[in-house]
Amino acid sequence: MAQQYVYFFGNGTAEGDATNKALLGGKGAGLAEMTQLGIPVPPGFTVTTEACVHYSKTGNYPEKMQEQMQVALSKLETSLGKKLGDIANPLLVSVRSGARVSMPGMMDTVLNLGLNSETVVGLAKASGNERFAYDSYRRFIQMFGDVVLGVPHHKFEHYLSAMKKSRNVAIDTDLGADDFKELVEQFLALVAKETGKPFPQNPADQLMLAITAVFGSWDNQRAKTYRRINKISDDWGTAVNVQAMVFGNMGDDSGTGVAFTRDPSTGEKIFFGEFLINAQGEDVVAGIRTPEPIARLKDVMPVVFEQLEAVYQKLEKHYRDIQDIEFTVERGKLFMLQTRTGKRTAKAAVKIAHDMVLEGLIDKKTAVLRVLPEQLDQLLHPMIDPKEVYTSIAKGLPASPGAAVGKVVFNAEDAEEWVTRGEKVILVRNETSPDDIGGMHVAEGILTATGGMTSHAAVVARGMGKCCVAGCGALDINEREKFFIAGGVTIKEGDFITINGTTGEVVVGSVTLVSPEFSGEFAILLDWSDEFRTLGVRANADTPEDARVAREFGAEGIGLCRTEHMFFDGDRIDAVREMILASNESDRRKALAKVKPYQKEDFLGLFREMAGLPVTIRLLDPPLHEFLPHTDEDVQKVAQASGLHFDQLKRKVSELHEFNPMLGHRGCRLGITYPEVYEMQVYAIIEAACELKKEGIDVQPEIMIPLIGHVRELEILREMTVRVCDEVINRSGVTLKYLVGTMIELPRAALTANEVATQAEFFSFGTNDLTQTTLGISRDDAGRFLPDYVHQGIYKEDPFVSIDVAGVGQLVEMGVVRGRSTRPDLKTGICGEHGGDPASINFCHKIGLNYVSCSPYRVPIARLSAAHAALKS
Amino acid sequence: MAQQYVYFFGNGTAEGDATNKALLGGKGAGLAEMTQLGIPVPPGFTVTTEACVHYSKTGNYPEKMQEQMQVALSKLETSLGKKLGDIANPLLVSVRSGARVSMPGMMDTVLNLGLNSETVVGLAKASGNERFAYDSYRRFIQMFGDVVLGVPHHKFEHYLSAMKKSRNVAIDTDLGADDFKELVEQFLALVAKETGKPFPQNPADQLMLAITAVFGSWDNQRAKTYRRINKISDDWGTAVNVQAMVFGNMGDDSGTGVAFTRDPSTGEKIFFGEFLINAQGEDVVAGIRTPEPIARLKDVMPVVFEQLEAVYQKLEKHYRDIQDIEFTVERGKLFMLQTRTGKRTAKAAVKIAHDMVLEGLIDKKTAVLRVLPEQLDQLLHPMIDPKEVYTSIAKGLPASPGAAVGKVVFNAEDAEEWVTRGEKVILVRNETSPDDIGGMHVAEGILTATGGMTSHAAVVARGMGKCCVAGCGALDINEREKFFIAGGVTIKEGDFITINGTTGEVVVGSVTLVSPEFSGEFAILLDWSDEFRTLGVRANADTPEDARVAREFGAEGIGLCRTEHMFFDGDRIDAVREMILASNESDRRKALAKVKPYQKEDFLGLFREMAGLPVTIRLLDPPLHEFLPHTDEDVQKVAQASGLHFDQLKRKVSELHEFNPMLGHRGCRLGITYPEVYEMQVYAIIEAACELKKEGIDVQPEIMIPLIGHVRELEILREMTVRVCDEVINRSGVTLKYLVGTMIELPRAALTANEVATQAEFFSFGTNDLTQTTLGISRDDAGRFLPDYVHQGIYKEDPFVSIDVAGVGQLVEMGVVRGRSTRPDLKTGICGEHGGDPASINFCHKIGLNYVSCSPYRVPIARLSAAHAALKS
Repeated sequence: MAQQYVYFFGNGTAEGDATNKALLGGKGAGLAEMTQLGIPVPPGFTVTTEACVHYSKTGNYPEKMQEQMQVALSKLETSLGKKLGDIANPLLVSVRSGARVSMPGMMDTVLNLGLNSETVVGLAKASGNERFAYDSYRRFIQMFGDVVLGVPHHKFEHYLSAMKKSRNVAIDTDLGADDFKELVEQFLALVAKETGKPFPQNPADQLMLAITAVFGSWDNQRAKTYRRINKISDDWGTAVNVQAMVFGNMGDDSGTGVAFTRDPSTGEKIFFGEFLINAQGEDVVAGIRTPEPIARLKDVMPVVFEQLEAVYQKLEKHYRDIQDIEFTVERGKLFMLQTRTGKRTAKAAVKIAHDMVLEGLIDKKTAVLRVLPEQLDQLLHPMIDPKEVYTSIAKGLPASPGAAVGKVVFNAEDAEEWVTRGEKVILVRNETSPDDIGGMHVAEGILTATGGMTSHAAVVARGMGKCCVAGCGALDINEREKFFIAGGVTIKEGDFITINGTTGEVVVGSVTLVSPEFSGEFAILLDWSDEFRTLGVRANADTPEDARVAREFGAEGIGLCRTEHMFFDGDRIDAVREMILASNESDRRKALAKVKPYQKEDFLGLFREMAGLPVTIRLLDPPLHEFLPHTDEDVQKVAQASGLHFDQLKRKVSELHEFNPMLGHRGCRLGITYPEVYEMQVYAIIEAACELKKEGIDVQPEIMIPLIGHVRELEILREMTVRVCDEVINRSGVTLKYLVGTMIELPRAALTANEVATQAEFFSFGTNDLTQTTLGISRDDAGRFLPDYVHQGIYKEDPFVSIDVAGVGQLVEMGVVRGRSTRPDLKTGICGEHGGDPASINFCHKIGLNYVSCSPYRVPIARLSAAHAALKS
Repeated sequence: MAQQYVYFFGNGTAEGDATNKALLGGKGAGLAEMTQLGIPVPPGFTVTTEACVHYSKTGNYPEKMQEQMQVALSKLETSLGKKLGDIANPLLVSVRSGARVSMPGMMDTVLNLGLNSETVVGLAKASGNERFAYDSYRRFIQMFGDVVLGVPHHKFEHYLSAMKKSRNVAIDTDLGADDFKELVEQFLALVAKETGKPFPQNPADQLMLAITAVFGSWDNQRAKTYRRINKISDDWGTAVNVQAMVFGNMGDDSGTGVAFTRDPSTGEKIFFGEFLINAQGEDVVAGIRTPEPIARLKDVMPVVFEQLEAVYQKLEKHYRDIQDIEFTVERGKLFMLQTRTGKRTAKAAVKIAHDMVLEGLIDKKTAVLRVLPEQLDQLLHPMIDPKEVYTSIAKGLPASPGAAVGKVVFNAEDAEEWVTRGEKVILVRNETSPDDIGGMHVAEGILTATGGMTSHAAVVARGMGKCCVAGCGALDINEREKFFIAGGVTIKEGDFITINGTTGEVVVGSVTLVSPEFSGEFAILLDWSDEFRTLGVRANADTPEDARVAREFGAEGIGLCRTEHMFFDGDRIDAVREMILASNESDRRKALAKVKPYQKEDFLGLFREMAGLPVTIRLLDPPLHEFLPHTDEDVQKVAQASGLHFDQLKRKVSELHEFNPMLGHRGCRLGITYPEVYEMQVYAIIEAACELKKEGIDVQPEIMIPLIGHVRELEILREMTVRVCDEVINRSGVTLKYLVGTMIELPRAALTANEVATQAEFFSFGTNDLTQTTLGISRDDAGRFLPDYVHQGIYKEDPFVSIDVAGVGQLVEMGVVRGRSTRPDLKTGICGEHGGDPASINFCHKIGLNYVSCSPYRVPIARLSAAHAALKS
């Protein structure tokens, strides 16, 4: 038997149903399902996606497709008592594409197919409305001409405008039957001229041409681009739905509308939508008349409304999810034209998932899977009021989500000063450095001209949960004169701007923001997520404040505390610089003795906040020159402030200069060459822990050595760490468990993880650096080519955002497997930026990591993602 | 039966022989073997290395060792008719350490053991020489006191000096028997005071104490350090040789000497050495008297000389290698005390290996293995005359071997100018950049203050076979004022200095150099090497001149031609800069059209030189900013010279600035973002190849895409390359085979080599960059910590010099295995600096690479190393 390429639906039965989405497309499956449910749907048939794929590959229709269509068409004609091309009682159909997933705008619709210069007369008679018939005919010629024959839309519009002008009317509805008749003639002539052939008058030809056009549209550039962006396979193809026309524009007893079964913005359980009396769907889109709220339909057409209510309730119960429906009323009779799963905001998604569990419609597992982790960001940060209309003057990288409004300042000191006097500021810099931490902390948002998604500004901003637009190359910043130019506009210090870290936009002036809402339903949904996930979720946090936020968001520990961030605060930077400038170990130790009390204070705060939970503290990581000023001007300033000699400072700065600081003298290499620095840090950590332990607080320190490449490095530093810890613990007389572990952030560490694990009680994969080294890409410099790379599909995603599974992922998995081969109880986690990315979290779950660690504001996303990963595996 | 810990030798028989080196140590095995050969050797016994290992682990002698020693001692006493501790006729012995390999200076010797205040009287009587007896006794107390009892040497010397002073004599030999008697009393008192115990008078105790001291010395710090440096296992232990004393200081019929069976400097077949009449070995060392050439012995002791000649000839024939021998003549009787393989210079090694094959002593395979590849560098570069005595003012890294003398200049332009007027110059820079190529080319040698073994200066200098000392941190260079200060000395422009790239030394003034000698024997030995090796050897060469040198040295192709080096020469840099400054593709193409003729010319020269051999050409690799000036001053200069705007140039420079250029916009990333650049290069390559092919020259181009991380990059660029090549070939109407391949220099490329190989006909492992990324170490910045790392044994060798087998090596092997899994005939090579390192070459052979590629001057080393690798596997 030949394969079935055509599926009929109508009169309460259908050959397909909702399970046939892949074959019939979303629309076709929905129509079939609704028909089966006894819901009034204009009859028709669906040509399958397989037929499209066949056509796309061979340029021919599959065998028997046309015969099967003929059978379905006859069935359709019989059921309606009309015939395609019948002069007295013509059947009109719509032809619509419908892929497995919705691809809006990819392909236009052809309505009123079946009209020609003879059937239009029959339609006029049958409908008793000549104007309606010719209006339909001219619309058909235009749509068909545009979509199928490639005659540009605007050429038809030109004649329509001229006609309105000559008749001295403003809108289409003021034109009469004769006007449309004349327009039809003009349109037919236009098509003949543009295509060199008369407009196809044979409805059977029209149908085949329309179907072929829909098939062909699958491979047009626009569709291909859309699929690439939305990761839709090129092999799926589209189905084609051929359906009897119904008309909402046949008088005041007709109309059309769209509706959602719940409010798609808030998730509230109300019937939500709008309708127009005496109109077709395209009139709603055209925006000539303002639709009315769906509730008003009750007054206008009470019977229809009652039917519609029954239908939408039936559909939601049936699909167990919010439905987005389209309907038409033709002379008092309701027809459903589409039902599909409704798109919704994050807020609505959370509320609907929550409510449907309470209503018994879905279980918790389904509810958790209904909310996309990627969406949650919306709920956690302020955003520009969706009602606002604005234009941006520049667009950078969406480096840290949320939006912010404030006055522009150009350096961190100004930021702090302005905020002290009650201003809200946006810190605008070419790039930020650790020196700017104070200013970043008080600013509403951060805007930089250079640097990528994982530049200093971006990383720190995300850590602070603060809005940031980075790498906005269009900005021409003059930091000294305190202004910047973008998009031809000059913005001076003190001018208001708004930045949108979710989209990367920079907007002049102050735009209204809406606050995030961390609703009760949200908290409940996350609790449900926790019931399903097996992956632990920790946060990257450097301060007690960060730690508190993280804990509130549900973090189960700190996975990464960057001790160097503590080196900048207040006076301590002076002692740190003194340490760096010391020319021998003894002077270095003297300076370190000044730094130590600060560090200890930091750890006391952190441990207190995280009582009962593990806290992973990474020893000093960045190269020392990061703590020194760089320009002559700054060197001068620091020299004056600290009482150091300019020359001495300057010499040290140039002595410490590195060509590739990322691959330079940093991480454990500092611990090897200056053991006293790491020793001071370990003393500070373990003394703080012992003090709190004496107070009865449960402290769980995990000391982490960064940038290990060779097991010997770790062996040397672990020995030192254990010696110091045991000495302090013995002296304190407390019982304290602590772990010593390492970051795995260099390929060599992953490759030799079996050796490294002999010296490490835990591994934390530092996938930022591991990505940089494995791919050989500096995240700070990648801005110049990585967008091209993602665009050309070399990397499907920015590998600094979503883990590169084939390369970096391979090393991470190797690290886990090899590490556990020599230490079966090895604890493993990830603390790179990827720890907050849903796809990466899914990967972490699959390879059996114990936990992910991400910025506090991404903890909810990580909890939900981890649940998704567990439920899907 | 108990294990045998003691091996007797004497009277023509021995329990061990030369095959027992591991058990008896080199010295013990040599003594046993000589005894077996009927050569006169004072009898004795060897305590095995196993006994030492047992003692080292447990602190106790192994069971039965002492009993076995007692048996051997009795045998010794019987054979000589003397007894240890016998008052009338005392046996005296020497106690010497002797490990598997020679560890000179690790452990002192104890001579004359067996003397005490009673036996010394017997010795005086038996020898009829009281002075000799007490001289021997005081020497024994001092040696034993120092070595075994730990009484410092200088405290004994103090009494000896005082004695000489009081007797008013200058040298020891002027002291008489009574003086020594008095000294003996003073020494005995000294030992008693220092150790709190009387000097051990019982010879049996003396012997056990001495043996224990030798055992213990295996684990002293000096020995451990020596072993670490020389890669000797700590588990080997040392043997102890106890041997009857013979005395060369018993009058003019006695004497002592050392000799080599051939000249160890030149390899000439002459008996070479020196001797002293009436002396002990230590007198030779003390340097009080000047030894006489061995040939003079023929006149002094003709019979002994004849015996000695017979012995040395027997030994060389027996061992089939040059021997280093020690002998003593006691009252006209010859005793051999040691024979071992003689150390020799590279030149001698080559000549001896060559000659011995011709003499039928060894086969070619043995000859090849007799020459160490590491040594060959000596033969390929000028070196400081070994006879010169000099002091250095600073020491940097030995970045490129050989030595050079010249006048100091501080920039490349001066270098070229000075050389034009006939001067020889040394180019001194803080660091070199590609801009300096011209100056480097004409300079005798290069000296830099910063940068490591693989810095630009080092890499380029090695490529040119030019002497270079890099990273000499002690230099304080003022490039503007044109002077530098080092070791307190100020060296101005035009002053002569000498640099030694083999040691890293910097010397004031002009030191005499000796030229390299590429002897006929050397060429023959390399030909023999070629018979054994399976690994191909290519050279890294960028110019026809380099290529010619490489070919002369035996390179079988070019493994890496760096096209960017061609970008700097002469005028072309202007066109290159124009290309970089172009703001759109069309302007870029215009500038590229100017560069192309130059590139094509380069390739024509290269292909011609390498006719019949493959030439691998790498497309542009460095980031574009490397071609732009960096300081404001240079920007100004370039702007003027090229007619560009200062501001425009300056903006571009800052626009292209990168934080980590090593991980930046370079390699194939340039090819992806500016396809027209690579396209121009491919046109130039393939047009040059086609032209020559038309002339009938065999051209084998291999086009190599650098820095691939993802197969898609290669796919895109390979498509372009094939399109261009096929177009040009078709147009030319020739038949030309070419290959398209890639560098594997990023971990991701190795990890996904199975994918990458689908697009590559060959892989060339760029182990410089692969080491940087795998270890996360920038070679330009590593100078600050890598020496510490090598010193602390974290990496046994500088991983940029010798491949890090466990990490980088693992990726290379993975790359080969995975690459061949999808393309079995994949050609694989290595073109990093490691391609010229013997240990790395051995690794390349083991994992089955097809070839190594190194700088032209290392081709001979690579050929020999490859032969060693093949012969050893």
